[in-house]
Amino acid sequence: MRGLMMDAPLMISGIIEHAATSHGATEVVARTIEGELHRYTYGEAVLRAKQLAKALGALGVRSGDRVGSLAWNTHPHFELFYGVSGSGAVLHTVNPRLFEAQIAYIINHAEDRWVCFDAATLPIAERVAPQLKTVEGWIFLGSDADLPKNGLSRVVGYETLLAGQDADYAWPQFDECQASTICYTSGTTGAPKGVINSHRSTILSALLMSTADMIGGYRSGGREVVMPIAPLFHGNGWQMVYTAPLNGHKLVLPGRNFEPEKLYEIMAGEGVTLAAAVPTVWLTLLDFMDGKGLRLPSLRAALIAGTKPPRALVEALENRHGIDVAQCWGMTEALGVAKTTLAPGMADAPSATRIDHKLRSGRIAFGTQLRIVDDSGAVLPRDGQAFGHLQARGPLVAAGYLKQPPAADGWLQTGDMARIFPDGYIDIVDRSKDVIKSGGEWISSVAIESAALDHPGIALAAVIGVPHPRWQERPLLVAVRKAGADVGREALLDHLRQRMASWWLPDDVIFVDALPMTATGKVNKVSLREQFGDAGSTQEAAVGAR
Amino acid sequence: MRGLMMDAPLMISGIIEHAATSHGATEVVARTIEGELHRYTYGEAVLRAKQLAKALGALGVRSGDRVGSLAWNTHPHFELFYGVSGSGAVLHTVNPRLFEAQIAYIINHAEDRWVCFDAATLPIAERVAPQLKTVEGWIFLGSDADLPKNGLSRVVGYETLLAGQDADYAWPQFDECQASTICYTSGTTGAPKGVINSHRSTILSALLMSTADMIGGYRSGGREVVMPIAPLFHGNGWQMVYTAPLNGHKLVLPGRNFEPEKLYEIMAGEGVTLAAAVPTVWLTLLDFMDGKGLRLPSLRAALIAGTKPPRALVEALENRHGIDVAQCWGMTEALGVAKTTLAPGMADAPSATRIDHKLRSGRIAFGTQLRIVDDSGAVLPRDGQAFGHLQARGPLVAAGYLKQPPAADGWLQTGDMARIFPDGYIDIVDRSKDVIKSGGEWISSVAIESAALDHPGIALAAVIGVPHPRWQERPLLVAVRKAGADVGREALLDHLRQRMASWWLPDDVIFVDALPMTATGKVNKVSLREQFGDAGSTQEAAVGAR
Repeated sequence: MRGLMMDAPLMISGIIEHAATSHGATEVVARTIEGELHRYTYGEAVLRAKQLAKALGALGVRSGDRVGSLAWNTHPHFELFYGVSGSGAVLHTVNPRLFEAQIAYIINHAEDRWVCFDAATLPIAERVAPQLKTVEGWIFLGSDADLPKNGLSRVVGYETLLAGQDADYAWPQFDECQASTICYTSGTTGAPKGVINSHRSTILSALLMSTADMIGGYRSGGREVVMPIAPLFHGNGWQMVYTAPLNGHKLVLPGRNFEPEKLYEIMAGEGVTLAAAVPTVWLTLLDFMDGKGLRLPSLRAALIAGTKPPRALVEALENRHGIDVAQCWGMTEALGVAKTTLAPGMADAPSATRIDHKLRSGRIAFGTQLRIVDDSGAVLPRDGQAFGHLQARGPLVAAGYLKQPPAADGWLQTGDMARIFPDGYIDIVDRSKDVIKSGGEWISSVAIESAALDHPGIALAAVIGVPHPRWQERPLLVAVRKAGADVGREALLDHLRQRMASWWLPDDVIFVDALPMTATGKVNKVSLREQFGDAGSTQEAAVGAR
Repeated sequence: MRGLMMDAPLMISGIIEHAATSHGATEVVARTIEGELHRYTYGEAVLRAKQLAKALGALGVRSGDRVGSLAWNTHPHFELFYGVSGSGAVLHTVNPRLFEAQIAYIINHAEDRWVCFDAATLPIAERVAPQLKTVEGWIFLGSDADLPKNGLSRVVGYETLLAGQDADYAWPQFDECQASTICYTSGTTGAPKGVINSHRSTILSALLMSTADMIGGYRSGGREVVMPIAPLFHGNGWQMVYTAPLNGHKLVLPGRNFEPEKLYEIMAGEGVTLAAAVPTVWLTLLDFMDGKGLRLPSLRAALIAGTKPPRALVEALENRHGIDVAQCWGMTEALGVAKTTLAPGMADAPSATRIDHKLRSGRIAFGTQLRIVDDSGAVLPRDGQAFGHLQARGPLVAAGYLKQPPAADGWLQTGDMARIFPDGYIDIVDRSKDVIKSGGEWISSVAIESAALDHPGIALAAVIGVPHPRWQERPLLVAVRKAGADVGREALLDHLRQRMASWWLPDDVIFVDALPMTATGKVNKVSLREQFGDAGSTQEAAVGAR
């Protein structure tokens, strides 16, 4: 027996239509590439998105065609999420911070027909253009008059395209499982992989991320002003391009300006209440504010993801600035699968306990199944102790990657190691490729690094597994001393010995002047393993009893 | 191009599985029919729902078969929403307050194979049983030992059914558009009509009703304790049977006891933070509390729907008891289509203004399109002034009714007259069948009734349209005086004259001792029109200039 409800597909265009109809006067404020503030409303944005959809049709872009974007957090970029996807085409958000060879690879791999760029990304476009095989033309996200001299062929101006169309356009309705966006994972090892979201997965993710249970604290009749400092090419600004208009929140976009003084200026000026960024951005912003004695009284919540924040950052935001920290884990392949809300009772818990819970990786959100397994695939208990490979399943989870066969068993391998608690918390312990396998057990490299960083003389720390004839692998600590510090091997090991089981203790410590880093600012452990991978075999004597 | 996300249907069983997995220790507390409190957890509830699903299979209930419930807000009734729907069968929630002929009609019309009842509804079951054509047997929602002597044939005990099964059951996965529940509209005119929700519409509705934008105020780490005082046969307790486990909220169920002293006892005892009920229940509860000088400090929000509350009730809840009122419109055919959150800025508005906004009928929620049309079907503006027939469209809206052809134009006729505001508020002005058509314009019967009730001498008021040779219809006010009041026709018309346009003024006032009521406690205007429908033709002289 079938239900008798209306057969209406979940369409991304429905979000901007809703915003225009019911929140038409609510503002979108965006810093332009030139640095000025551009200000308009959802009522105006929907008209431009419709003009864009018509203009793409006039350019020959058809349903399913890919349109790339090499752009920062500006209002035209926001419009692409509706004009491109709403027309039935697929928006491919390209990370301009990738190496140029990677940018060329993913544009060719996704077979983008047109690529949008702005004045800031033009030099990248010019450099990769000769390597591109499918791109028929470029769209400059600005006015023709502002287009700098360039070496691209067939460039059209975005404002000219829009001016050539009226907004008399009915959004097409189609299968909600059609692709809406493509976003490539950064691919620290191997080639980047393309995650293809659908209209269905996007709407469901945006709804889940709009639940009170996901972030919490929103007041009826309040003025919520949200700002993705996360770039729009990074999980669609953590879905805020969708959740802001869906909920009628004022949307503030920082343009290309992620420097703390510019962030502070726009957050204070526009009264931002909820902003989303990775820990380093928050750290830099807080340093700037503390240095100048500044406050952001309107800011009620800081959404943090991407990497687990240091405890000191959470304490500073919560205790010194009165800003509620909402932190959880997510990935391009699975957006909206963990929620930041704490377990019942934590609101009234002592601050230190509450922060302990905030430093976990969020709690499992409705709609997604998460589980941990051991190397053989056996499911591990949710006891807050055991940790294993984290796997995910559900309608918000990637089944596979563009031009790659889907995983056979129906679970996404997240590549993370985690614990799961009985009350739904997860806690990321390590990356699967970084965990150290010792005598049939796992040792978390991250846990040892954290303990090492607690030592006042240590600036940076990285732990890798090195081959060992008896234990398979043993941990090796590679550390950078703080300027002026003279901590030695034995003192550091003594420090660690008080903080972990004896068999977790690194077999050796190697002090270096600097750690190798990846393009995305993480320690390059592949390089470390190449450099120090034979260090372990000579160090057996240092292994404690186990 | 298709998205590459996992192909996972939205299943109601996923809600209770999520609750069990991530909120397994969270409680469900329900008053039994006998009056005791039954207390268990989502972790235990899911096991019983699985046992039920297996037991239904053993009884021969197959996917798509209807299972009826004639039951109050108890924990077995809660389990039916998962055990029945989760197994692929369809739960038909029957309103025990309907006339017996209607109950027999809808059970026959839905072709229920089994009907569940409790000790309180047993007499109804016994009386309708002889009229039922498809029912093969009855399930007593209790232990065999507690089953009273009865005249039903083939009764099985719920606890016995469950005890005969283990909980080793994998919920079936099937097309999310399959039916999950059937709920009949009360049908004030004509036969009741069956609305058939699907797993898809239910999950989407529950997600929308879980958005921060829908009710607001939920704190991260808070202990939310929700209680549907709305019966579970009334829009599934306004979807709380789904939203509570979805969000991990403690669920409190009042059993059959809607008397104020029993409601107060369980709300205070269990620390209810959010409760849902129609205005009359809130009025009765407040009267009781005020009479005894009692407070409910844990209660942060009162969810009100069903009928627009009187202003005095909202003021008492907000200003005297500090309870946030969340009010909006909804109907069996469209659950979760309006949200209670106020427009931005209202949180800081003066109390009177905020209450003005709360007395509107909510704001359009994402996912549903609402519009107003005139008699010819022309769409009216969203200017907060024009009012017309309210129509709805979207995935949460009924396309039709069981065994009735769907509406031709793809819009649900809600039967209500409303205004729509530019910021998404709607305001129900009248029922379409009650609005008075005068000289090509509409007059709201509800508005005149409200104005009449503002007079200190008036206890009840009903306005009907009576035929008129020139104006087509004119309003007639039928009023009941308060005990001891001696207000007359002219005094009442003078009172009204200051509160409305002259052409809205009733042509006459008829004082009566009592108004005829329907089975669901509303004024029976059909009966009033039969009684007074010829009153207008002699009253032309009373019409003011227009």
